[in-house]
Amino acid sequence: MTAESPADLRARCTRFLPGHGPLTARRWLEALAASPHLDLRPDEYNEGPAIALLERRCAELLGKPAALFFHKGVVAQQGALLVHGARTGQLTVALHPKAHIACDESDAIERLTPLRLCRVGPDHRPFTPGELAAVTDPLAAVSLELPLRRAAFQATGWEDLEAIAGWCRDRGVPLHLDGARLWEVQPWLDRPLAAIAALADTVYVSFYKGLGGLGGCVLAGPEDVIAATRVWRARFGGNLFTAWPLVLSALDGLDRHLPRMGLYHRHARAIAEALQGVPGLRVSPGIPQCNSFQILWDAPPAGLEQALTDLARDEGVWVGGRVGGTTVPGWSFTELAVGEATLGWTPAEVAELCARMLERVPR
Amino acid sequence: MTAESPADLRARCTRFLPGHGPLTARRWLEALAASPHLDLRPDEYNEGPAIALLERRCAELLGKPAALFFHKGVVAQQGALLVHGARTGQLTVALHPKAHIACDESDAIERLTPLRLCRVGPDHRPFTPGELAAVTDPLAAVSLELPLRRAAFQATGWEDLEAIAGWCRDRGVPLHLDGARLWEVQPWLDRPLAAIAALADTVYVSFYKGLGGLGGCVLAGPEDVIAATRVWRARFGGNLFTAWPLVLSALDGLDRHLPRMGLYHRHARAIAEALQGVPGLRVSPGIPQCNSFQILWDAPPAGLEQALTDLARDEGVWVGGRVGGTTVPGWSFTELAVGEATLGWTPAEVAELCARMLERVPR
Repeated sequence: MTAESPADLRARCTRFLPGHGPLTARRWLEALAASPHLDLRPDEYNEGPAIALLERRCAELLGKPAALFFHKGVVAQQGALLVHGARTGQLTVALHPKAHIACDESDAIERLTPLRLCRVGPDHRPFTPGELAAVTDPLAAVSLELPLRRAAFQATGWEDLEAIAGWCRDRGVPLHLDGARLWEVQPWLDRPLAAIAALADTVYVSFYKGLGGLGGCVLAGPEDVIAATRVWRARFGGNLFTAWPLVLSALDGLDRHLPRMGLYHRHARAIAEALQGVPGLRVSPGIPQCNSFQILWDAPPAGLEQALTDLARDEGVWVGGRVGGTTVPGWSFTELAVGEATLGWTPAEVAELCARMLERVPR
Repeated sequence: MTAESPADLRARCTRFLPGHGPLTARRWLEALAASPHLDLRPDEYNEGPAIALLERRCAELLGKPAALFFHKGVVAQQGALLVHGARTGQLTVALHPKAHIACDESDAIERLTPLRLCRVGPDHRPFTPGELAAVTDPLAAVSLELPLRRAAFQATGWEDLEAIAGWCRDRGVPLHLDGARLWEVQPWLDRPLAAIAALADTVYVSFYKGLGGLGGCVLAGPEDVIAATRVWRARFGGNLFTAWPLVLSALDGLDRHLPRMGLYHRHARAIAEALQGVPGLRVSPGIPQCNSFQILWDAPPAGLEQALTDLARDEGVWVGGRVGGTTVPGWSFTELAVGEATLGWTPAEVAELCARMLERVPR
């Protein structure tokens, strides 16, 4: 017998802690069939009324003149940075060493474009305005991930954001926001989405994280900059024959999940607070800055993985996906993104569940 | 009042000549809901049982050890050519000047990769073995589009294919087949798919042309070559969160349309023969080599476009999409891909329809 994959095991679970619950094609079809936009003509090669509606809604929410749909964030962001580079005549992009672009895309930006990276700040928190100001290389752009997933979903605070935006503006350096989780961090920043986006020249937002869509994203910014990214979208394979399932589910996500981001954030804070009281557990950051945070376990990664698997198999409860190691020997971490499924658990229940998990870890 | 777009106009039509008929989200949802594979766990980041089934079925059909799903052909093909280039230590890819890679992707291959193109043969027909043999540049690969869409869907014949494959093999040059319409040309080549694919090292096949899927494709070839293309898929934005709608519709296309490719080809030949008898019309090639061919009209492009639009508006009949110009002044062309919708028309009806179109052209 071959071992069951984590994804197979998860599919057999009956209770789910993270996100919006399990992914099944039937469930997606029901959601798509209920879309109020179902009778809009499907997009073909990125043109059509539903995709135009999605772009318009995002442009309005973000207070930008133009927005363009992309099938994948890596393409939207490389497109934006290539256009900024062409305009500034520079090739160096400043970003955080643990930014998604810098560490999760198999070095795509350096293998497929002439751009080079200048890494700013330490791994465990966002860079400060002072750290950025110490950069002396002429820059094509600054790319700022907000919040920074690999640094426990920590976000640059409002004052630092304003200082960074001012520094960029004073030097004519375009500022790009990697807003994969911008919807999710907005309640913590406590400013309208458009006020946050106004700090930057271009903003990327994702549809398949907190918004619960099938995939895709939008890049928003000035008309001419966005128009110039179209050809890069095509070159990177973004001229999908049709993307209507992604587009309808993104529209649905804006209706359904965007108004609940404050609720998800409050629930994340309450759960984090409850977890702080469990011996052998910590959370990072101490007070979550969006719907997601890291749970840190006084247990080695292999042991924690075993405990997660055992719990899923024995009780049909899915606590989380990947387990990561930390620089503290014997400690590991998981991520918890709070969504509709998580709302079904009280903070005390989550604390009890995690304590039980720790007990299961083979010693 | 703004003018109605061709796509809007098409959406209001009631009869369709080309392809498999109109694209509506409701129609797609019905098809997906009827898939026998609906209860397979959806893929996540290109992993899952449905996507594995699709890759396995394609590998078997094409007689190759491995196959990998991609969201878009431009990525599959650039990935294959990059891997061939890394193995040969060369950067020059020989291909036809009107190959899709060379003329339809905004120079993606030359803007995003270190590869360079060496264009072989004249625009109006596939290159011959002799024309390829005249190339003296050391090659990373030969990429052969079969059939060649921009040359009226003409295909290299079997003897020439064998000669080209032999020339490549003798020189240690990898041969890549751009088989966007390989399923469609198989009846004309009259060899099993695996026998055709055996001529080449890597083969790309598409799911959203004759197979009628939502999108996506597969690259097939040796285990190690295919494994090496995975990282390029990620770099080009191919790690979709989920592609299950594409995957299910591709499996459905293999079940539904692949066995009918011979039927579509025969109907294309019968229609082409009927059109030859209409004054002011020609077809290219004279005998279609797959389900698709060009209809050439003794009418300037703007006039023909007007006639197509008028017919769609007045009679609700959709004859075709884009009109192209030719190098013969006063002549234009459209493409006809024969699919399920086309089967609803007899060749005589199509000839009558096209004759009526020509009469409508403003003189």
